[in-house]
Amino acid sequence: MQVLSMKHKERLAAYANRIEEELSHFLPLEGLPQQEVMEAMRYSALGGGKRLRGAFVLEFCRISGGSVEAALPYACAIEMIHAYSLIHDDLPCMDDDELRRGKPCCHKVYGEATALLAGDGLLNRAFETALSEEAVDRVGEARALRLSRELAGAAGYYGMIGGQCIDLAYDGRVPDRATLDRLIALKTGALIRVACRMGCIAAGAEAAQITAADTFAAKLGQAFQIRDDMLDVEGDTVTLGKAVHADEKQGKSTYPALLGMETCRAEVARLTEEANAALSAFSDTAFLEDLALALVTRMN
Amino acid sequence: MQVLSMKHKERLAAYANRIEEELSHFLPLEGLPQQEVMEAMRYSALGGGKRLRGAFVLEFCRISGGSVEAALPYACAIEMIHAYSLIHDDLPCMDDDELRRGKPCCHKVYGEATALLAGDGLLNRAFETALSEEAVDRVGEARALRLSRELAGAAGYYGMIGGQCIDLAYDGRVPDRATLDRLIALKTGALIRVACRMGCIAAGAEAAQITAADTFAAKLGQAFQIRDDMLDVEGDTVTLGKAVHADEKQGKSTYPALLGMETCRAEVARLTEEANAALSAFSDTAFLEDLALALVTRMN
Repeated sequence: MQVLSMKHKERLAAYANRIEEELSHFLPLEGLPQQEVMEAMRYSALGGGKRLRGAFVLEFCRISGGSVEAALPYACAIEMIHAYSLIHDDLPCMDDDELRRGKPCCHKVYGEATALLAGDGLLNRAFETALSEEAVDRVGEARALRLSRELAGAAGYYGMIGGQCIDLAYDGRVPDRATLDRLIALKTGALIRVACRMGCIAAGAEAAQITAADTFAAKLGQAFQIRDDMLDVEGDTVTLGKAVHADEKQGKSTYPALLGMETCRAEVARLTEEANAALSAFSDTAFLEDLALALVTRMN
Repeated sequence: MQVLSMKHKERLAAYANRIEEELSHFLPLEGLPQQEVMEAMRYSALGGGKRLRGAFVLEFCRISGGSVEAALPYACAIEMIHAYSLIHDDLPCMDDDELRRGKPCCHKVYGEATALLAGDGLLNRAFETALSEEAVDRVGEARALRLSRELAGAAGYYGMIGGQCIDLAYDGRVPDRATLDRLIALKTGALIRVACRMGCIAAGAEAAQITAADTFAAKLGQAFQIRDDMLDVEGDTVTLGKAVHADEKQGKSTYPALLGMETCRAEVARLTEEANAALSAFSDTAFLEDLALALVTRMN
């Protein structure tokens, strides 16, 4: 198990704090007569998680030569999409969960109707944020348009929602390897990939760097998921500090079931190596390499 | 009761057909392994309704000197938003409806989980459509960005979703006039207003025309809703050909309850006159005036 160096732990925490502040700014409570749904949106979007997706946006912007502040609205937008997907996934008609990140799910606190609207509100608010004058002022019209388009593509039917559809279709049955890879690539991979891509795009990186960031994210996302499944088999039930949107109920230990633990270990090592190799398109990548290793060797 | 002239009826039908074709294009079934959710999206988005919101986009684009084809992706985007809001509104945790436009609701056909994802998918797809290369090629980057931003604002917490929140908070109780006006202005008015505004923006209309279109839509939207409530009192239960997203269950006859039928009639007349007066900022407005009158004097 590799832990983040103190310096990198501090950088991750600094990113998470900045994202938290900005999320609160984009989800203001003041002066609203119909506060309850916004309270529910804030309940689910604020105060939790490592903000890995948002941190990837900011860090890839930084190593592509851009300013972290320019990328912040896009870090917030992707965290809003992530938060909405968790609210809707937890609803009784989906996974019917009670707890999320150690606290009661949105619908347990606010009721189903409000939770449904809060999810819709966060999904919509992600695009309001990505398209806001504030965001466009920081990155310019052309990049704002491209960033918003990439986000919409990754979050939608051809991305995250598509992955949820496959998951729904299998409903607990173990799919074959190709289908499982596709499910994971869409359901959790699409948002991680677009986070890394958006960081590059916000900074005006060239195409080769965007492709390299995409490769890093795709490999790391899959390695992370396999590690997640392995932890489940090892019996270390994970609830706190859970960073990536893994399905708690079904398909949790599907990689070990399909491949066996030994092959899983080898796959994680291979994928992590390939992820970090893709970073050679950038310089100053120590934080990302360290973070990748910490994620795929974590014990909970 | 005023009926649309044959010429105008044909124009409305032609708009609806063109929107239907383009919606089908933006919601393709081919080559997808997780088809069921896309089938549910198409079930709810295609084959129904007068496409009033989409028609407003196209007609305001036309009278602002733009091409109907340029505005089409935005007509589709707003119809997707409308369709998603109906799917989620009909869910058991919201209105728990069985029928929509005379056919079973999405969740009655596909189940709740698929209907939830189909709604999310359509909301997301609206932005994918508005931000697509196809759309941007037709209107240019600056207008595409503004159109998408306006759509996001109108559909979100400060627009339609905000109206749903107020509705939820009142849960069948009759609000006071100011609150009811605000509820209607957001829940159904915001999308009608942005439809008219987007038509103008797609054509590059000047600010005064955008404001005039907004006024037309705001007044007409309220008049339509009051007429809707009056029809409910008159006992003409409306299900077929229902064009505007009125709540079937609660608050349906709230304007007559608050104002009495006589005042309702006077309000509809006043609002319609003010709506049509706003059209003086444009020429060639016979279709819109005729459509407005037909909507507010309809008998079902």
